[in-house]
Formats: sequence, C-alpha cells, structure tokens
Amino acid sequence: MKLRIIVTLKNGVLDPQGKAIQHALGGLGFDGVEDVRAGKIFELVLADGTSDEAIDEMCRKLLANTVIENYRVEKL
Amino acid sequence: MKLRIIVTLKNGVLDPQGKAIQHALGGLGFDGVEDVRAGKIFELVLADGTSDEAIDEMCRKLLANTVIENYRVEKL
Repeated sequence: MKLRIIVTLKNGVLDPQGKAIQHALGGLGFDGVEDVRAGKIFELVLADGTSDEAIDEMCRKLLANTVIENYRVEKL
Repeated sequence: MKLRIIVTLKNGVLDPQGKAIQHALGGLGFDGVEDVRAGKIFELVLADGTSDEAIDEMCRKLLANTVIENYRVEKL
C-alpha cells in the first residue's frame, strides 16, 4: 500500500524557513507573497494490511514532532 | 489565494533521507516498510490574481531544483 504523510508546523509556531523563502521571493521580484509555510512530505510503501494504528504510531514516534507539528495521512 | 506546492525527488534520484527513515522505522520494530521517499511542501498565500506563469516561475527559480526534483501546484 502507498501512502503520503504530510507534516506541517502548527499554527502559531514560528517558521524561519518559510519566512526566508518569503523574503527571497520578494527579492526575486515576486510581489504579493503574503505568507509562506514550509513542511515535509513522506511517501511510504508499506506491506498490505499495515494497520492504521501502526501508521499513526510511525508518525508520532518518528515522522512528526507532535509538540510543534501536525500530520495528515493520505492513502493513495 | 492559498496554494500548496509539493516538491519531490524525481524517480531514480537517490534519497538518503528517505533511506535513513526507512531503516529507522525498521529499527523501531515496524515491519514491512518497503520504501520511503522524503519531499517538501510549501503553503503559500499570494495576492489574488497572481498568474499561473508567476507561480510556475517561483517554483523553477527558487522552490524546486528541476534537475532532480518535480513539483506540483495545488490550489486550495
């Protein structure tokens, strides 16, 4: 089974990478960039029948830092 | 306007970060992890009316390295 896990910073958590990208886009002449937030995406191929609980545990134990990040699982 | 830009490595490009995650998941006791690929996601808020050409140019000039990465734009 293939799935995609999207990890993004929670609202209110400062995102210096996003801010740097926003300023760089301005410097390149792109006007009207109001906000940029950077996140991560993981595309996993798992054995068929891997349980949702196991997938959730992978996210919480390794892929996302749930103190500051949200994650979302999309099955493909 | 809000949009999401997903940047992933092209097929055939080695992904050491993904491999490290795959091994780490194995080490944590998760069996059956067959492949992991890591990528980036950017959530942008742009001025309304920003053209598709400008968005495409942002991706090619700054957000993605088109030699080794693909990008995809999703409007939200």
